[in-house]
This record gives sequence, structure tokens and C-alpha cells, in this order.
Amino acid sequence: MKVDIEKEIQQSAEDAARKIRELLAARKVFAVNLISSPGSGKTTLIEAAIEALRGRKRIAVVEGDIETDIDSARIRKHGVQAHQINTRSSCHIQPFVLLSALDNIDLGATDLLFVENVGNLVCPAEVPLGEDMRVVALSVTEGDEKPLKYPLVFRTSDVLVITKTDLLPYVKFDPERVKTAARAVNPGIGIFEVSAATGSGLPAFLEGIEAACDRKSG
Amino acid sequence: MKVDIEKEIQQSAEDAARKIRELLAARKVFAVNLISSPGSGKTTLIEAAIEALRGRKRIAVVEGDIETDIDSARIRKHGVQAHQINTRSSCHIQPFVLLSALDNIDLGATDLLFVENVGNLVCPAEVPLGEDMRVVALSVTEGDEKPLKYPLVFRTSDVLVITKTDLLPYVKFDPERVKTAARAVNPGIGIFEVSAATGSGLPAFLEGIEAACDRKSG
Repeated sequence: MKVDIEKEIQQSAEDAARKIRELLAARKVFAVNLISSPGSGKTTLIEAAIEALRGRKRIAVVEGDIETDIDSARIRKHGVQAHQINTRSSCHIQPFVLLSALDNIDLGATDLLFVENVGNLVCPAEVPLGEDMRVVALSVTEGDEKPLKYPLVFRTSDVLVITKTDLLPYVKFDPERVKTAARAVNPGIGIFEVSAATGSGLPAFLEGIEAACDRKSG
Repeated sequence: MKVDIEKEIQQSAEDAARKIRELLAARKVFAVNLISSPGSGKTTLIEAAIEALRGRKRIAVVEGDIETDIDSARIRKHGVQAHQINTRSSCHIQPFVLLSALDNIDLGATDLLFVENVGNLVCPAEVPLGEDMRVVALSVTEGDEKPLKYPLVFRTSDVLVITKTDLLPYVKFDPERVKTAARAVNPGIGIFEVSAATGSGLPAFLEGIEAACDRKSG
């Protein structure tokens, strides 16, 4: 009986993810599912992307947090559409919750959708949301062994963005060790080193997203 | 049926936590359940505690990670007992897993047990492990709004330890904002500011643990 219920939940999650994919395909919206630990700089990265792509891509953001609308309020200050999901006790955004949240976004006026998942390196990795690109962020303050300890999120992500590189002089963190570990579980993963504080590395990271977004809308 | 199964799982978790509590009471071992995001410095904090309390408390450590035995290997280098749990797909240590892991620790030769939970601010907060003290660690690089976004772990913890304070000059982080937010959800929480890199704040943090440990063994 337990197995049946788990299968049913799994099936309904896959159904919802498929519906999201179809909806985004119909509206030609490119969706990025952004995953990291709490405090790796996901919201800051999205804010930097909004400013860098202003006038080129119409961006909308769905923010996932256990509680509060702090992040959607931050995003809205940049003049883009933002909707907040509060997952309460759930450690990730569930596909049916995202599907319903998309009712609050004008997808006809959106080229690029960022979905900022709940801060967590474990659960969100197990749940496809119908996204076009999965990005895992890892800040240089978190330690360079993380891809070994949390392999699933690195295995299932298209891109790894190493954040807060401006703090490299003050922490023990070897970017090469992270790259080697990430590529060991996912040889095709794209890796970028970014500082949202200084802007360093941001254009290279966004170039790939913008190009993929163009391919989908074209 | 689903509810029945959930109740059963919940019940068996509570049973295992109670057995852990009884076992630790019988052996007069004081247990700390250490919770944080990935990379907040839990292992480093335990390493610093081992060195600071050397010759005063016999310490043992149970390390929880999704994969790898990197952390237990780090701990063992300090000459204390360490056992590694690999939770695979589970985002927290389950009580029955900890109960079984304790078979690998000589509790008769232990005064103070650190249980380092899986790096995660969400799931571990929901699962009591029969610990005497729950400590949540938050590094200054993670942002000062975290107690608002992840209230449960701050509400259920006895102590908040703000880590990596040596990085304060380089990040936007207001310790007072964190303290206010943490006390809003948990007025009785003890708060310490620590840098394992410089040792600053460590004695005050460990004093409380040592005193509580003495009360249990006395």
C-alpha cells in the first residue's frame, strides 16, 4: 500500500511537471530552476541577471521559500513580475504548486522565467519542475567538497555557478577541486565563476542562458 | 490509509528517539544535535570543540551526510571516536538510523556526543533525535534574514551559533538583525558569535555545553 501511494504521488508530480513544460512551450518561455543551499546568493544572482538583461529579455520570477515574501519583494523592486510561493513545511517547490503559481504570471509578457527553489541542496534535486535549464549555485564560503557530498543536484543540473568569488581571498576554497568533483558526477556540466558583488563572470554565465532562451522563442 | 502510514512512521521515529534518550541517560552521555545549511561550518565547529575540550570531555561524533565519509575522516584525525552515517536520499538523520549508529560508539567512554546532521535547514528541524541540546549554526555569509525564512529550526533549537564571524568585514550581514529575528520565533534561544578560524567567541559557546554536560554526568 505504501508503495502504491508513493507511486501515485510520483505520478501526479510528473503530470504537473509535464503540464508546466507544455504551458511554457506554448508561451515560448524559457524556465530556469535555480537550486542551492540557503544563502548561496540565488536571489542576488537573479537581481543581477534582471539588471544585466534589462531591455533584452522580459523576465519573471517565482520565488520559493518556506515562509516570508522577502525575496519576491526584493525582486519586485527591479520592476519585474514576481510571485511568492510559501511551501510551509515542504523543503522544495512541488510541481503542482508551481503550475498553480504560474496563473499569477503573465507568461505572454515573459521570455525568461527564473524559479528560485527553497534553499536546500537535497530535496529540490529530486523534483523536476518542467524547467528548461537547472542551475545549481554554490558559494565559495560553503566548501569545495560539496559535489561529493550532495551528488544528485550536481548530477541533474545543466549548469554549476560558483558564487561570491569576491570572497575567495578570505576562505579556503579551491575552485578547481569543485570543478573536478562536479565533472566526476556530471561530465557535461557547464561551470561559471561569478561575483554578483563585482559583476565578474556574470556576462559569460548569462550569455548561455540568453542564447538558450533565444533558441526557444525563435 | 495514507494518514495511517504517516502516523506509523511518525510513531516509530518517536519510539527510536525515546530509545536514544534512554540509552544516553543510562550512559550519562550529553548529546548535541547540530543543524545548519551545507557549508555553515558544522564540522569545523566540532573540530574546534574537540581541541578546546581536550582532556576535559571525552567526545564522540556521529556524522550525517548524503554521501561520503569525508567528515568522519576529518574528525578521526583529532583522535576521537567518529562514525559516519550516509543517508543516501534522506535529507536528515532518522532516529532509527542514529540508534543503530550508536552501536559503533563506545558510549561508556563518551561524555559528549556531537551528532552532525545532514546540511539542511528544513527537514532535520522536524525530527527530534533524542538529543539534550539542539544547536543551529548560521554563517555570516548566508544572510541575516534566515530566521524569518526558516523559522522551525530556529524555534526548536536551544542555541544559535553565528559562525565565520571573521568574514563579517566582507559581507552584508547584521548580527543584530539575526538576533532579533531568532528571538522573535524563540525568545529563549541562546546566541553565540563564533569564528572557528580565529577562536573568537568559542569559549563562551562551549562553556554552556560543558556546564550542561557536567550536570548530566554529575
